[in-house]
Amino acid sequence: MTKLRVHNLAVSIDGFATGEGQALETPFGHAGGRLMEWFFPTSTFVSMSGHDSEAVGSGTRGVDDAFAAATNRGIGAEIMGRRKFGPQLGAWEDESWRGWWGEEPPFHSPVVVLTHHTRPDLAVGETTFLFRDLPPRDALALATDLAAGQDVRLGGGPTVVRDFLAADLVDHLHIVVVPIVLGRGVRLWDGLEGLEERFDLEVTASPSGVVHYVFTRR
Amino acid sequence: MTKLRVHNLAVSIDGFATGEGQALETPFGHAGGRLMEWFFPTSTFVSMSGHDSEAVGSGTRGVDDAFAAATNRGIGAEIMGRRKFGPQLGAWEDESWRGWWGEEPPFHSPVVVLTHHTRPDLAVGETTFLFRDLPPRDALALATDLAAGQDVRLGGGPTVVRDFLAADLVDHLHIVVVPIVLGRGVRLWDGLEGLEERFDLEVTASPSGVVHYVFTRR
Repeated sequence: MTKLRVHNLAVSIDGFATGEGQALETPFGHAGGRLMEWFFPTSTFVSMSGHDSEAVGSGTRGVDDAFAAATNRGIGAEIMGRRKFGPQLGAWEDESWRGWWGEEPPFHSPVVVLTHHTRPDLAVGETTFLFRDLPPRDALALATDLAAGQDVRLGGGPTVVRDFLAADLVDHLHIVVVPIVLGRGVRLWDGLEGLEERFDLEVTASPSGVVHYVFTRR
Repeated sequence: MTKLRVHNLAVSIDGFATGEGQALETPFGHAGGRLMEWFFPTSTFVSMSGHDSEAVGSGTRGVDDAFAAATNRGIGAEIMGRRKFGPQLGAWEDESWRGWWGEEPPFHSPVVVLTHHTRPDLAVGETTFLFRDLPPRDALALATDLAAGQDVRLGGGPTVVRDFLAADLVDHLHIVVVPIVLGRGVRLWDGLEGLEERFDLEVTASPSGVVHYVFTRR
């Protein structure tokens, strides 16, 4: 049975999953890369980003990498919010924006982009983006079809994850708490009082200073 | 040299150090005992609370107890906010309230209670409460005198800890992150953006599900 999974969702110790002031040059706002610094040294990231061409097998292989490596395993489709796809707001002024990821995005699968402003499907490399105005349950039904028996990844941002958690649609939630106080931005946990009652939890501290929380729906 | 230390300050994963609705019957508001459930089974708590009379040496002795046991070590005085001393607000209607702790409070040392509404010093068992209207730096100077060469513990609540952190007066900060989403209450981290830059950090996950953060001022 298809599961809905969240991986590598980093939040600051004060609960912000992205900083303030997202824009083309600052996709994470004033947080910059600080929420993902645990991720960049991992073997998984080094391979994904193509920096590995001259150093096969480089990157760390500790607990951070073990979690990072689970991200793509058995995934057949992704659901993401429009703010993950791009910095624009409102109606599309033109359709030249093709995402942050260049001509071979790292998804290699259908991606349902949730937006009130639909546009035609967009194929970039092995990834097809489908822009849809759907509530969480319907978006999951569509992505489940597209995943063809594999799991669906809920790719963020935090507002989208919060909506799906509120609707109790998330089976696997991997949160990475980063020991920085961001102070402002988008909060992950708002409106989710008592969330822990619906999940089993395993907690692992990494030598890098981050803590991995794995919530599994009961 | 006297250090200012915070121990066992529990916060929910969404950053609340106490719940909403503090009152005589609910000193932690809607959080109830949930922020301290990791603490109650420890040998340290069992001994402190006098439940140990028939079972000397009972209680857990794992990592949670190791941290709990450090609370009183080398402490000569405490600073606390008025809300830790009692649930009343505003001027004292009478002075019959002698704290939550009965006739032998667990402090056994002078305690500076920060309040805009002073009242005469109050001796209860081995503890003397001094009610003072002082800014953080002056409160620390007074408590340092009273501690006579030992350290001063900053006992909370969260608003008081936040004020002392903002004034950069805290040397040792032990935070316990509890994996529950409280949703409402008093936030610990507000106004402390970039706090991590002033501290070294060690992180330890406990099998109980809580995570111990030890911040040491650089």
